[in-house]
Amino acid sequence: MLTVITPQEARKIIFDRFMPLYTPTESVALADALGRSLYDDIVSDEYVPGFNRSTVDGYAVVASDTFGCSESIPAVLELRGEVLMGESARYTLTPGNCVAVSTGGDLPEGADAVVMLERCEVYGERLIGVTSPIAPGNNIIYKGDDVSPGEMVLLKGTCVSPRDIGILAALGRSRINVRPKPTVAVISSGDELVDTQQTPERGQIRDVNAPMLEALIINSGATSINYGIIRDDENALRRIVKKAVGECDAVLLSGGSSAGTRDLTARVVGSEGEILFHGIAMKPGKPTILGAIDGKPFFGLPGHPVAAYFVAELFIRPLIARMMGSETKQRTVTSRISETLSSNHGRAEFVAVVLSDDGASATPIRGKSGLITKLAHSDGYICVPRDSEGVAKGALVTVTYWD
Amino acid sequence: MLTVITPQEARKIIFDRFMPLYTPTESVALADALGRSLYDDIVSDEYVPGFNRSTVDGYAVVASDTFGCSESIPAVLELRGEVLMGESARYTLTPGNCVAVSTGGDLPEGADAVVMLERCEVYGERLIGVTSPIAPGNNIIYKGDDVSPGEMVLLKGTCVSPRDIGILAALGRSRINVRPKPTVAVISSGDELVDTQQTPERGQIRDVNAPMLEALIINSGATSINYGIIRDDENALRRIVKKAVGECDAVLLSGGSSAGTRDLTARVVGSEGEILFHGIAMKPGKPTILGAIDGKPFFGLPGHPVAAYFVAELFIRPLIARMMGSETKQRTVTSRISETLSSNHGRAEFVAVVLSDDGASATPIRGKSGLITKLAHSDGYICVPRDSEGVAKGALVTVTYWD
Repeated sequence: MLTVITPQEARKIIFDRFMPLYTPTESVALADALGRSLYDDIVSDEYVPGFNRSTVDGYAVVASDTFGCSESIPAVLELRGEVLMGESARYTLTPGNCVAVSTGGDLPEGADAVVMLERCEVYGERLIGVTSPIAPGNNIIYKGDDVSPGEMVLLKGTCVSPRDIGILAALGRSRINVRPKPTVAVISSGDELVDTQQTPERGQIRDVNAPMLEALIINSGATSINYGIIRDDENALRRIVKKAVGECDAVLLSGGSSAGTRDLTARVVGSEGEILFHGIAMKPGKPTILGAIDGKPFFGLPGHPVAAYFVAELFIRPLIARMMGSETKQRTVTSRISETLSSNHGRAEFVAVVLSDDGASATPIRGKSGLITKLAHSDGYICVPRDSEGVAKGALVTVTYWD
Repeated sequence: MLTVITPQEARKIIFDRFMPLYTPTESVALADALGRSLYDDIVSDEYVPGFNRSTVDGYAVVASDTFGCSESIPAVLELRGEVLMGESARYTLTPGNCVAVSTGGDLPEGADAVVMLERCEVYGERLIGVTSPIAPGNNIIYKGDDVSPGEMVLLKGTCVSPRDIGILAALGRSRINVRPKPTVAVISSGDELVDTQQTPERGQIRDVNAPMLEALIINSGATSINYGIIRDDENALRRIVKKAVGECDAVLLSGGSSAGTRDLTARVVGSEGEILFHGIAMKPGKPTILGAIDGKPFFGLPGHPVAAYFVAELFIRPLIARMMGSETKQRTVTSRISETLSSNHGRAEFVAVVLSDDGASATPIRGKSGLITKLAHSDGYICVPRDSEGVAKGALVTVTYWD
């Protein structure tokens, strides 16, 4: 008997029950940290920038020297030299003087503003005229404006983006502690399944779920091990599940299209571990089993590829993120539905949609469960809540982008 | 003198000028096709599914046998046997008979509907009662419902998603022709730059752009070669640019914070190839150079990390996609800006924003150009068009998600 729970309840059980992996941290070179999950908070131990810098090409001045100047009565300053890029300013500026400085150059002691070249006139080698007054602090980035010592810069669990790589480089972190990637087992079951390479006979179909789930696992930042296709046989199933639980951090078994296999899966999980739920009140994806074996998550996924894919996006991607001490961040857009979707009773319905170029219109993909081509052409999905009256054509819907 | 063009014009020049790489195709295993760009259109040469399948557990019937039946007057049918999973149905159904079939099982010849188990009563080994009439075609997926021979399934240039892997598996494609990854050179220039590993002296800063740009290149599906930091010297610059152009498909040179270096870069590109534009009317990112050397794109990027990052997101990511025969797909959300942004004159302004959890509110990240930590914490960016009056607090804005 299915103990059916809502998608929200299912997610809560997953999050309450399974913890980040506390296996040893992995130290990787900065470049290899891209897409990995930070093991530690990154706290700065430096000032960035490490010195006061000009943000323009111009002349470092004492701002008060320029007060009241204009194009007709420029402030005339004596040029004491130039700050070279990559060197500290060797001058201490005093009133009446200025020093040439490039964008990013070190600001001399005593200077409190930089006048852009465009607002200066050159009267020969040693005399500069400033044609517009400047306020103290203008055109300067101060030491520590970006980061100061002790400042929290990136939180542990952050999935490292190219922008984060930029920060880590700025802080001089050439090696980064990241969480190990979880290893997720993929098993396909069903007497009707054959490998991608094989030509199916009548009654047989190629195994779509294993390659697709492996891609989703890798896409989520984990690694996968494929245990192949097993037949609908309790002993074979039990053997492969035990092996996978022993070797991996999580196990996905897809298939069990037939009622017999579903019962078989439940029996094996129930005896080897514990069933946490059996059935989610959603469409597609209802016949989903979650179990725990040796403290590790076990998912029994529907055999239909579209159903398996929705369950993987909604529950397994977040589970993998959690195992890496991270969280998935959903990207959504508000759009108008182009067709009326009729109501569904008692089950949240997830519908793939194609977005118009500007994202303003979402066309639902119709079709019988299992039509994988239709899914691939979609941009994301919407959820029609359980017990709703459906969604009327033109209504606003929240589309969650895939990936 | 800068010939400043708009971001739209810049993008058009990039797209008109640079073509997909027509180097030989690369054949990869299905699992390795994830994230790669398809070299060919994928046209099905098979039916998916290859046979008529039941979508439920139940009994295959001749639908007309059930017309008029009810719970009180069930239609009584003779059970002829069972279709086993993975085998073709060995029965040809005639009126008055039925055959047991599981979800995904082969539909016997002669059957035109499948009655769910829940709508049947079992009267012993050979007799089944159907308690509710069924229409022809119900609970069946027909041969070719998903794909038929000759049907275009995926377009060349598609960046392969886990869902696409699913389709390719369904069609039996175990090896896939993909476009080669472009190789992009990354060069940093500036006398003030030191490596990530080094502790900068006063006046020096760590090179942020090279690691960040390399991460963005990899994230875009290409590979990168880092040519290190070169000093502001025309001969050194010329040598490294020629080497990079010889070895790579595109070259990025970042730096040139000082006016002298910018001139130097323009001189080298102008003499080794052709300058296509020098300066984009955008903030940040104005001092960007695009050139062509030996027909290959050369980008001179601003030294400020934030400016370099915006130019890379807006122009280099699409360029890499184009070189792979693909297109970047921007993901956007409409949100309300939480603060007034003042107008800017003559330049499109790109502002990074942090989205609220529901995406309804976008808070602009303020700060001087070059503050890389602020950028990393943002979710995406908005564009304040040139010559606009700015954006008033609460106004609707289109946020483009990063990556």
